[in-house]
Amino acid sequence: MTRYSARVQKSNSLLCVGLDSDRGFAFNKQIIDSTHAFVAAYKPNAAFYEGAQGMSELARTMDYLHTTHPDIFTILDAKRGDIGNTNDAYVRVIFDELGFDAVTLHPYMGHESLLPFLDRRDKVSIILCRTSNPGAGELQDLPVDGTPLYQVLAKKVSMEWNKNENCMLVVGATAPEEMRVIRSIVGDITFLVPGIGAQGGDVQAVVTAGINSQKRGLIINSSRGIIFAPDPAHEAKKLRDEINLHRDNL
Amino acid sequence: MTRYSARVQKSNSLLCVGLDSDRGFAFNKQIIDSTHAFVAAYKPNAAFYEGAQGMSELARTMDYLHTTHPDIFTILDAKRGDIGNTNDAYVRVIFDELGFDAVTLHPYMGHESLLPFLDRRDKVSIILCRTSNPGAGELQDLPVDGTPLYQVLAKKVSMEWNKNENCMLVVGATAPEEMRVIRSIVGDITFLVPGIGAQGGDVQAVVTAGINSQKRGLIINSSRGIIFAPDPAHEAKKLRDEINLHRDNL
Repeated sequence: MTRYSARVQKSNSLLCVGLDSDRGFAFNKQIIDSTHAFVAAYKPNAAFYEGAQGMSELARTMDYLHTTHPDIFTILDAKRGDIGNTNDAYVRVIFDELGFDAVTLHPYMGHESLLPFLDRRDKVSIILCRTSNPGAGELQDLPVDGTPLYQVLAKKVSMEWNKNENCMLVVGATAPEEMRVIRSIVGDITFLVPGIGAQGGDVQAVVTAGINSQKRGLIINSSRGIIFAPDPAHEAKKLRDEINLHRDNL
Repeated sequence: MTRYSARVQKSNSLLCVGLDSDRGFAFNKQIIDSTHAFVAAYKPNAAFYEGAQGMSELARTMDYLHTTHPDIFTILDAKRGDIGNTNDAYVRVIFDELGFDAVTLHPYMGHESLLPFLDRRDKVSIILCRTSNPGAGELQDLPVDGTPLYQVLAKKVSMEWNKNENCMLVVGATAPEEMRVIRSIVGDITFLVPGIGAQGGDVQAVVTAGINSQKRGLIINSSRGIIFAPDPAHEAKKLRDEINLHRDNL
C-alpha cells in the first residue's frame, strides 16, 4: 500500500496499463519503455499468460519491471480463489516467485479461504466486488435482505476482511452509480477500475463517483485502448491527464 | 458428458483422483500407472502448476494421459472466471492446447461472462455452487429473498446456464445437507464433490445425499488421501469400492 501511494505521488498518476496481450515479453517491454512515466501501475491479466510459454513471458516481463522501474506497482489480474491450503500455492508463485505487489481474487468462497492472501501484510488483495461485464448483476445485484450482494460484500471487506489494511476492491467503470454507493459504504478503500475505453466506461463519471476523501482511491485501468494504439505513450499521457483534470475539477 | 458416462460404465467407478502436488510429471505418471483402473476422472488443481515449470509438467501429464488412457475424463480444477473476451484465452489453453474435458469456474461474474466456456458443447463447465471449505457459507449461505445464494445459483444453472447440457456443479462433501437440497433443485446434474478425506467429508453421507435418479451424478474426488498414501492403488480401489457399496445399498 505504501509503495502504491509513493508511486501515485511520483508519477502524479492514477493510471494503470493492462498488459493484456499474448504477444509476449518483447511487446510488453516496448509498452513499458514508452508508457512508464505516466503510470502508477501495470496489470497483466493471467489469462493471456496461461501455459508454460506464457508464464515464462510473464516472468521475463516482471524481471524487466523490477530491474528498470522497481517503484511501479504491479497487479496480477488472475481472479484466483481456492481453498486455503491450495491458495498457499498461488501465493508462493504470484507474490514470491513472480514478485507481484497485488492480485485480484474471487470472493465466492469467503474470506476464510482467502486468508493465505489476506495474511500477507506486505501484499495487496483486490477483491472482485462489482465487475465491468454486461452480465455482472446476475449474482452481484441479488437482494440479500433487500441489499444488493455487491454492497453486502463491500461492507464485509471494509469491516472484516481488511484487518491488515491491505484490501482493495474491483469496481467496474461501467457502473458509476454502483461505484458511488460502494464509495459511501467503504470509506477510503482503493478501487481497481477496469472497463474504461473498449468496454465503454466514462472517465469523468468514474472520477466523480469513485474518488475518495484524499482525492485518490482509484486505480483506473486501460488495456486495449493503450497497448494497441499507434502511439501508446501518447494515449497513456492523454488518459493520465484526463483523469487528473477531472480530479482537479472536483 | 458422453465421454464421462462411458468411462463411469467401463471403470465401474465414480472416483476422481486429484493430482494436487508440485512434484511434477514423474510423480503424476506413477499415480496414473497405479490407479487408472479404479478411476473415472483425474483432476489436477491448477494452483500446483502455476508458473512456467508447473505448466510444462501439467502439459506432459496431459500428453501421457491422452496417450495411455484417452477415455479417462480430465478436469482442470482452475476455478477461473473473467470477462468474456478474456475467458476466450483460458478456453484456448485449457480446452484446446492442454486438452481438458472440463474446467471448474467461479460464478460471481454471471453466466454472460462464462459464455466462452458454456458455448463449448464438446466440453464441460463445472460451476462452484457450495464449496467444501469451513468458511464457504459466508457468501454462499446469504439469504436472497429468504433463499440461500447457493440454492439460487443452483436453480439458475439448471434452468438457464445449462442450455447445452454441459454444466456440472461443485458441491462439497463437508455439506451433505446442502447437497441434498441442491439435488432436489437441479434434477440429475452431476456434482463434482471435493472434501472427502483430509477435509473431513463422509462417503456414505455424500452418496446418500447426492446420488441422482440414475444412481450416478457424482464425481467424488480424493487428492491427498490417495496420492500421498503408501499404496495409492490400494487406497483408490478401497474408496471406489466403498462408494459402490453405499450406492448398491440405496
